[in-house]
Amino acid sequence: MQIQKPRGTKDYFGDEFKKRRELENKFIDFYFKKGYQGIETPIFEQKNLFVRSVGDNTDIVQKELFNLEKKSDEVYCLRPEFTAGVIRSLIESGIKSKPLPIKVISVGPCFRYERPQKGRKRQFNQLNAELIGKSAPEIDAEFISNAIEFLNSIGIENLRVFINTLGSSMTRKKYSGVLKKYLISNSQKLCELCNQRIKRNPLRALDCKNPLCQQTVREAPIIIENLEDEEKKYYSSVLAALKLKWKNNPNIKFIEDPFLVRGLDYYTGVIFEFGIPGDESRLSSVGGGGRYDDLVKELGGPNLPAIGMALGFERIVEYLEEKEL
Amino acid sequence: MQIQKPRGTKDYFGDEFKKRRELENKFIDFYFKKGYQGIETPIFEQKNLFVRSVGDNTDIVQKELFNLEKKSDEVYCLRPEFTAGVIRSLIESGIKSKPLPIKVISVGPCFRYERPQKGRKRQFNQLNAELIGKSAPEIDAEFISNAIEFLNSIGIENLRVFINTLGSSMTRKKYSGVLKKYLISNSQKLCELCNQRIKRNPLRALDCKNPLCQQTVREAPIIIENLEDEEKKYYSSVLAALKLKWKNNPNIKFIEDPFLVRGLDYYTGVIFEFGIPGDESRLSSVGGGGRYDDLVKELGGPNLPAIGMALGFERIVEYLEEKEL
Repeated sequence: MQIQKPRGTKDYFGDEFKKRRELENKFIDFYFKKGYQGIETPIFEQKNLFVRSVGDNTDIVQKELFNLEKKSDEVYCLRPEFTAGVIRSLIESGIKSKPLPIKVISVGPCFRYERPQKGRKRQFNQLNAELIGKSAPEIDAEFISNAIEFLNSIGIENLRVFINTLGSSMTRKKYSGVLKKYLISNSQKLCELCNQRIKRNPLRALDCKNPLCQQTVREAPIIIENLEDEEKKYYSSVLAALKLKWKNNPNIKFIEDPFLVRGLDYYTGVIFEFGIPGDESRLSSVGGGGRYDDLVKELGGPNLPAIGMALGFERIVEYLEEKEL
Repeated sequence: MQIQKPRGTKDYFGDEFKKRRELENKFIDFYFKKGYQGIETPIFEQKNLFVRSVGDNTDIVQKELFNLEKKSDEVYCLRPEFTAGVIRSLIESGIKSKPLPIKVISVGPCFRYERPQKGRKRQFNQLNAELIGKSAPEIDAEFISNAIEFLNSIGIENLRVFINTLGSSMTRKKYSGVLKKYLISNSQKLCELCNQRIKRNPLRALDCKNPLCQQTVREAPIIIENLEDEEKKYYSSVLAALKLKWKNNPNIKFIEDPFLVRGLDYYTGVIFEFGIPGDESRLSSVGGGGRYDDLVKELGGPNLPAIGMALGFERIVEYLEEKEL
């Protein structure tokens, strides 16, 4: 009797292996030249790390973690993303003794127990970058530009960069309340899932794929209207710096998307997503990220701002293969 | 409160990351030049795969597997080694349609729930090679020589290659019986663990680290005396070919070790281990492997012989670092 690979996983052989390895190496080389260092963290971590960083009420933690069977007191799970483990590692090894900003990259597999479908594997690879210890509009613009440059360098030349901001955690909380009120008063025009989300995580309703919800949400109060002046200014400066930097490249389009949210609780401030053209829905995202100025402190480290992003490895390989045909 | 990395794991940062990546790339480049292809299999597999290949009565399956919490009907665990997954993958993708021999390498993490100690992490990396579809003394000699050449090429020039043979599964079974008889009649001169092993896996007593057992085992019947003529001839030919190939290199020593066994059930025929000099106990092993002519068939594939080996990544890095000092 023949044993099959686990659902939602894939084997890579020969040319596929080679292409994947080369893409990882290109990412590493590119970011090394930009002054980044590599960091390799374990495939599994204490589950609590993700509960506290990604967020207890997120889909990732609620439904999608691969837990390991308990052997000792500690509850482990396979990492669903890189950021939490990277920050855990930097804090543990003495983040304070390192010169700032710390600029690190990681490559390798992450795991989510999702319903497997095209482009959504249970084991998938990410190309991940983090910049810790500095916060300024030009830092964010450069961080996002680096990713664009990298994608350009491997042959992904047309990009839509969707941008939004969540403001500080205070602003986000305030806005959550405003949005919740709107969603409750429009609950009959929301899908069942979004009705559940109202309580736990109202922001997620903003990027629900259900057409009914999309229509309802289109009239919801948006976060930009709820920002503090300083936050508004910061966000505008990031946008301006990006547009200036890429003004001579018509292939890179920046799109302010007030409905962009990301499925992780740790984001604050600017968030972004890289979309592949020809496919306007957000399903065509090749990755994204954002600022997470509270996470280092929340995980027991010093009060350091940070920004990070991850690119979906398989989506990039797939796109490059389609392009070749 | 600060969250720690899981017990028995390690983070790698900066230069460490770079060195590890470079070592992996050197392994890949070396074996690509020898006509090998890369294969990447999932980090987790059906537990049953390892029960059937590594063996139900091995320490690995009995005690050391990291099981995933059950979510569906399938029971998954983190891979404790590469061979089983690689063979599963090749069978699933149609091993019969590929030209023989199939020569593949893998790199990446494996997992065993062992008591963490120096050189024994719960997450560790391996450099793995397999050659499937051909069996001949010169194939084995070349396969082993490739590994020696690779180790030489990265700066591990002094090697003791311990060699033994287990014969066919028939011979192994016959010898197991002979050995069992001897061990039972000497059970008072064996440690408690080896007394348990007599029933389940008597061969493991041969490489028990307990001095009492080592003394007892030294007088046990050895497998070479129990080989069929053809098996003896095959084994001698491998040894002769290796000695001929390396006769001008005094740094490579081949040592016939009748007590060498390996902790996995799938081995048949020639087995080997690479020892680092200056440290004669087998604890200084940087890796090893052997023939497994029955495994492909046992996992539901065609009747194809095979040979494989794995190098301990961290042990190599450590050795090279010590050498640099």
